Amino acid sequence: MQALLLVAHGSRRESSNEEVRQLAKALGDAEHDFGRVEAAFLELAEPSIPDGIRQALAAGAERVVVVPYFLSAGRHVVTDIPAEVDQVRRESPNADIVIAPYFGSSDEIPRLLLVQARNS
Amino acid sequence: MQALLLVAHGSRRESSNEEVRQLAKALGDAEHDFGRVEAAFLELAEPSIPDGIRQALAAGAERVVVVPYFLSAGRHVVTDIPAEVDQVRRESPNADIVIAPYFGSSDEIPRLLLVQARNS
Repeated sequence: MQALLLVAHGSRRESSNEEVRQLAKALGDAEHDFGRVEAAFLELAEPSIPDGIRQALAAGAERVVVVPYFLSAGRHVVTDIPAEVDQVRRESPNADIVIAPYFGSSDEIPRLLLVQARNS
Repeated sequence: MQALLLVAHGSRRESSNEEVRQLAKALGDAEHDFGRVEAAFLELAEPSIPDGIRQALAAGAERVVVVPYFLSAGRHVVTDIPAEVDQVRRESPNADIVIAPYFGSSDEIPRLLLVQARNS
């Protein structure tokens, strides 16, 4: 089983965290090959990234794909998320944990922004 | 002429601001009805949102569509961006300035995240 872990920054506003959890749920409801889709947070909300990965492994995932829900390739994407993932890799050296390209690197973003602009 | 103003938070990392300017350029190069596409920033980078709108009006825009490049409907989207836009509306009461739905409200985001996950 493959698991998808949607990783966001986390916010003091619980409604923003809930928005991310709802997005993970929408992802889970879409058509895909992942047996499990959950959200995790870099800070300020639960579960943490290591806990999110551990829960996926405990649920039987052979592979965990971490998808950073970030717009730019800042410190969080380049340094912090890989460091959190490495923590679990050290604990579970046989687990297959990969980090997908961050959301902001999607080449469809210009088209989506034009759709938003036309919806105004 | 309609202008599109892509509005991001702005970062201390100049490379993140440059990423947004490049995205505005990619938007400008796509097929659309906007005579002008530029970036502006809520803080930490130039131009500010009011200056971005003023420059669009000075360039002859009859309508300026402000597109918030934000993932969640936090304070910046709900309060700060509208307040910056209102500043120019007071100066130029005849200008048609609208705020598009923020990027994170696009219903195509789950699909894009699944594409990113499959690219891992």
